[in-house]
Amino acid sequence: MNRSKIQAIVLAAGTSSRFKSETPKLLFTLCGQEMILYPLKMLQQLDIPVTLVVGHKKELLKRIIEQHAFSSLTYSEQKHQLGTGDAVASTASSWHAEHILVLNGDAPLVQSSMVEELIKEHMKSNVAVSFTMTHNNDPISSAGYGRVVIRDEQTSIVEARHFTGDFAVDCFVNAGIYLFRREFLKRFISSLAKHPGSQEIYLTDLIEIASKQKLGVATVNAPFDQVRGVNTLKELWAAEQIKRAEIIDACMQQGVRFGSVQSTHIDCDVTIGAGTSIGAGVQLFAGTRIGKGCTIGAYSCIKNSTLGDHVTIQPHVVMSDATIGDLSAIGPFAHIHGNTTIGNESVIGNFVEVTKSSIAHRTRIKHLSYIGNAHIGSDVNIGAGTVTCNYNGVTKNTTIIEDRAFIGSNNSLIAPVTIEQHAMTGAGSVITETVPSHALAIARAQQVNKEGYARRLRDSITVVAAVKSKTQ
Amino acid sequence: MNRSKIQAIVLAAGTSSRFKSETPKLLFTLCGQEMILYPLKMLQQLDIPVTLVVGHKKELLKRIIEQHAFSSLTYSEQKHQLGTGDAVASTASSWHAEHILVLNGDAPLVQSSMVEELIKEHMKSNVAVSFTMTHNNDPISSAGYGRVVIRDEQTSIVEARHFTGDFAVDCFVNAGIYLFRREFLKRFISSLAKHPGSQEIYLTDLIEIASKQKLGVATVNAPFDQVRGVNTLKELWAAEQIKRAEIIDACMQQGVRFGSVQSTHIDCDVTIGAGTSIGAGVQLFAGTRIGKGCTIGAYSCIKNSTLGDHVTIQPHVVMSDATIGDLSAIGPFAHIHGNTTIGNESVIGNFVEVTKSSIAHRTRIKHLSYIGNAHIGSDVNIGAGTVTCNYNGVTKNTTIIEDRAFIGSNNSLIAPVTIEQHAMTGAGSVITETVPSHALAIARAQQVNKEGYARRLRDSITVVAAVKSKTQ
Amino acid sequence: MNRSKIQAIVLAAGTSSRFKSETPKLLFTLCGQEMILYPLKMLQQLDIPVTLVVGHKKELLKRIIEQHAFSSLTYSEQKHQLGTGDAVASTASSWHAEHILVLNGDAPLVQSSMVEELIKEHMKSNVAVSFTMTHNNDPISSAGYGRVVIRDEQTSIVEARHFTGDFAVDCFVNAGIYLFRREFLKRFISSLAKHPGSQEIYLTDLIEIASKQKLGVATVNAPFDQVRGVNTLKELWAAEQIKRAEIIDACMQQGVRFGSVQSTHIDCDVTIGAGTSIGAGVQLFAGTRIGKGCTIGAYSCIKNSTLGDHVTIQPHVVMSDATIGDLSAIGPFAHIHGNTTIGNESVIGNFVEVTKSSIAHRTRIKHLSYIGNAHIGSDVNIGAGTVTCNYNGVTKNTTIIEDRAFIGSNNSLIAPVTIEQHAMTGAGSVITETVPSHALAIARAQQVNKEGYARRLRDSITVVAAVKSKTQ
Repeated sequence: MNRSKIQAIVLAAGTSSRFKSETPKLLFTLCGQEMILYPLKMLQQLDIPVTLVVGHKKELLKRIIEQHAFSSLTYSEQKHQLGTGDAVASTASSWHAEHILVLNGDAPLVQSSMVEELIKEHMKSNVAVSFTMTHNNDPISSAGYGRVVIRDEQTSIVEARHFTGDFAVDCFVNAGIYLFRREFLKRFISSLAKHPGSQEIYLTDLIEIASKQKLGVATVNAPFDQVRGVNTLKELWAAEQIKRAEIIDACMQQGVRFGSVQSTHIDCDVTIGAGTSIGAGVQLFAGTRIGKGCTIGAYSCIKNSTLGDHVTIQPHVVMSDATIGDLSAIGPFAHIHGNTTIGNESVIGNFVEVTKSSIAHRTRIKHLSYIGNAHIGSDVNIGAGTVTCNYNGVTKNTTIIEDRAFIGSNNSLIAPVTIEQHAMTGAGSVITETVPSHALAIARAQQVNKEGYARRLRDSITVVAAVKSKTQ
Repeated sequence: MNRSKIQAIVLAAGTSSRFKSETPKLLFTLCGQEMILYPLKMLQQLDIPVTLVVGHKKELLKRIIEQHAFSSLTYSEQKHQLGTGDAVASTASSWHAEHILVLNGDAPLVQSSMVEELIKEHMKSNVAVSFTMTHNNDPISSAGYGRVVIRDEQTSIVEARHFTGDFAVDCFVNAGIYLFRREFLKRFISSLAKHPGSQEIYLTDLIEIASKQKLGVATVNAPFDQVRGVNTLKELWAAEQIKRAEIIDACMQQGVRFGSVQSTHIDCDVTIGAGTSIGAGVQLFAGTRIGKGCTIGAYSCIKNSTLGDHVTIQPHVVMSDATIGDLSAIGPFAHIHGNTTIGNESVIGNFVEVTKSSIAHRTRIKHLSYIGNAHIGSDVNIGAGTVTCNYNGVTKNTTIIEDRAFIGSNNSLIAPVTIEQHAMTGAGSVITETVPSHALAIARAQQVNKEGYARRLRDSITVVAAVKSKTQ
Repeated sequence: MNRSKIQAIVLAAGTSSRFKSETPKLLFTLCGQEMILYPLKMLQQLDIPVTLVVGHKKELLKRIIEQHAFSSLTYSEQKHQLGTGDAVASTASSWHAEHILVLNGDAPLVQSSMVEELIKEHMKSNVAVSFTMTHNNDPISSAGYGRVVIRDEQTSIVEARHFTGDFAVDCFVNAGIYLFRREFLKRFISSLAKHPGSQEIYLTDLIEIASKQKLGVATVNAPFDQVRGVNTLKELWAAEQIKRAEIIDACMQQGVRFGSVQSTHIDCDVTIGAGTSIGAGVQLFAGTRIGKGCTIGAYSCIKNSTLGDHVTIQPHVVMSDATIGDLSAIGPFAHIHGNTTIGNESVIGNFVEVTKSSIAHRTRIKHLSYIGNAHIGSDVNIGAGTVTCNYNGVTKNTTIIEDRAFIGSNNSLIAPVTIEQHAMTGAGSVITETVPSHALAIARAQQVNKEGYARRLRDSITVVAAVKSKTQ
């Protein structure tokens, strides 16, 4: 088909009061991507130029859209909320292609194949207007969708609020995707009148006009789940469920195993290598890339991070903005964030936070440590309870730990400070100065055992407590 | 309708052997509230006085019920388990109203609107008895429910164990909600006979009597999901799922966004402000109130706590009996409990426990700390690895940290102790005495670097290990 | 029935390319047990000897199977992938019983009762071949299953790829479970020809032969969910869901309460006592035994561990290879692993790791500690921030803490070291030598308060920071 004959109008001007939110509903994310981006990316993929009708909070919308490179997108403003007919009419000056595709901005599940099918049918039937409809005779989920009414070879769409028929008879609803011949649109759109009840102009009235004038109306069918609109937070949840299932299905086909599909979340741009296993409840958010043969433990949440191959993430890891090398192991209960880079075969254990740091290969930080603003070399071992004291109340300072250093337990490393290659520090040390290569640094008081003192201390505490509780 | 003409009898005497539990099944919670409280609260809301028929473990039941203020609730004891007919008969001395409503204690999903509809129909039809029935021709889920059999204008209820007909024909089941004219009940209840097989007296036999005597039987329909009884732990799960869905649905309508509805739990008395976002797997238990515009991270579990507006709870936070001020941020991996209060704009970070403490505004405890029995002022910064040593083996003591104090990393604060305003402590300090305002407290050994010692230490350890492994 | 007349052939030679994995699909676990073990254990339970047809990666398969004691299992190798007919033919030399049962290795949900029913029907009907079929007219989930076509009293199975009929008419699919009279199999299996398209020999062609020759074909019906084959990771997920639901259902019947059935995972050999409550998202893996009256908090993951009665596991606990005594309490955010044993009434609190250690009764390790290679007695109290320094860079060493010892906060215990009965250590101590019974060990520098120093320090840091930011 010749797509250059087609241009699209996407309707994104409406308020979204049923979301009860300051944020316009089209900026709510669905699997990590703002809703409005779904139709725009789909149309870009089809190489169809877009006129986006904006109105309500248009600046917020534009700000997000402009973070993406849409090659042929123009805006048109609808001044007043006078319905879909008015919205399309307001774009008349931009009409240049032979056929005008109209879509709703709030239908993020519409797929390019569906639009292609509509175009194909439209071209083949050579009609004034084509539209997509879907079968749904469930009165609850189809509430809000216009009804397709076909009588005596006449087709019309009756808006939900005006429909008084029987769902079991008129069981097709309007999917909100239309393709008009431009000449038809030009000639008739100005003839549309406001409906008395709603004071709105309905684009859908054009179907009846085309039908009555015998100018031709074609329809194609699509599954309801692919054309769902999103007008409430509940509908957003339903749509996100469907998108998520599509994403996970695609992963399974690529050789990814899931412990519990129903509790797993994956954003739409996440990639996962074959042979990787995803535990129950794992949340993989936008910008995450996971290699082959990895294991992601239950309930781990990973955002905007890159994992190499054969990485093991134990359960209950929280990670964002991190890069992890091949064969490294993280967790359980680890928190890696702040543009941290970890090399190959390193181990970050439980109750360890690493932020704004780089760690090279085969280094082990296995327990209860805080590593911030640090550069750590290869083959380093950091004892349990170690803290990089990177903050003095005003500025953040850097800790450098070179290759093969060994940091004892419960150390406080007062940044800026350097522990050179092969150096060691004793347990419980507060390190304030450079530890030279191969040196052992100790900062510790000598142990003194006071014989019998524990008994006396216990006795005296007990007496004090007894007196206290009596006097209270 | 005139509700003063109605009194209710709630049946709660039965054993619950299929729960295999010491606890009576009616005290199992469903979305955080004991099952028996559902019908009692619903009837109180309708202003209908209740006679509760108790028997099995009645003292346990009463103890829970009496923690709530039911204005017109009386108890009646059923001595022996002789069936629903006997249970209702045993309450005869308490009958005073014109109409007697009878409900099961184990139907927590029954809504007041359903009872109102039954009352309305009963009054309108002017019959001897009305009851609620529900359509269900699934032989599995309707097992256990009496069948409504209508033949030749005669209505009767056949208990499940005696029903031998076809589910596809007699596809209505008895919901266990009846409204009797008192005079009818009085006249006929004593005529009910024990069934030979079960040796029980069935209240439901009264339907057939009323029908045969042409005294009038009215019915109303209700969805099966709202009348489900709970006789097994599996049925409890099913009922809890339905209640949970209702609660979450109501939240979504109020502007709350959910990442994963199917893995989220919310108890029935929890409130959540508009614009709040709830991550996957969040568990919100009884007594929790969450403000507007908050973010609750995945897998956080919150119980009996109050959160202000715009609070950020990172993933994996466990909280109970806490109050958090506006704009504060908690987690990930934090544990806040023990009647702790945290002010506005404060930050509690990862691997931090706070219990039995108060923390004021803009204070930061970001890593790996234990804060117990402490009073902490505003604008305080507490370094990683800090411990309030509040327990000496016998008593708990208090730590006071005043405004703008700065506690270095890996500190041990031996309570009772006070760190005054603007004071600082050096990393790795053990603080045993008051640190005066603006003072710096240090308790630390000097760092000594032993040159080349690390190499020798490694060599000697390696030699020892080698010898050891040889001799083993 | 006389089972000694029956032997089984299990088909396990196929490649599993759609899994996109190096591991053969039959070694993927389903609820913690490798798929191939399901039919083998089921047949062993029925006392039916098995010939396992192997081929693709047969050594890997054998290695796993041989870890289990199957009393009458022999292997037969299929050299080339020439279809099910060839696979069965290749076992001819092993045929000794009167009837030959043939099953697929990748149908882990087949239950012994279903096989027993097939045998019963086969014996009763005295036919050449019997097979199990299942109703499924959903074109998506039945794709891949052979269609049972019955026309003019003739039965045949048409492989999915050759089926051109209407699913709504031929709505029974082949479950892949056959019982052949040996004589019939012997006579006709060599007459099967390769199908032109696939170049494979189909065992299912024998059904048509038996039917046409009027030698008798019997069928039994089974639910689709019990005969599902597993050819993709998605089908594995579906099968695991069903198995998991069966396991949880059985637990509920035994008196176990679940907070959220749909997010809980339980492996097939886990046992749970009555009165135990399982929180949302709990993962219980192979080898785990939980006693009566326990509480397992949300999102805890437990593997190969034994819990006594009335144990409390708080939310977010990770445990493997551990034994926990009655009435002990663990978590939240605890990590217990490495063959650790914990006695009765002990408490392991938040941010605590215990590995390769034994802990006796009533001991408390409540916050932020690392306990490795330690033996800890009864009634011990270990302060927050305590670390057993068990690793010196080369070897692991043991810490011994005897009954009623009290370890202060932020201690570093340098192993090997012993803290004797009733001994105490001061907060912040580095303990390198034995602490005798009833002694108090202290290793700590004296606190020095430098008056006004904090103010000067802040000022100087601020000046430095200001200069730095200017010069940058």
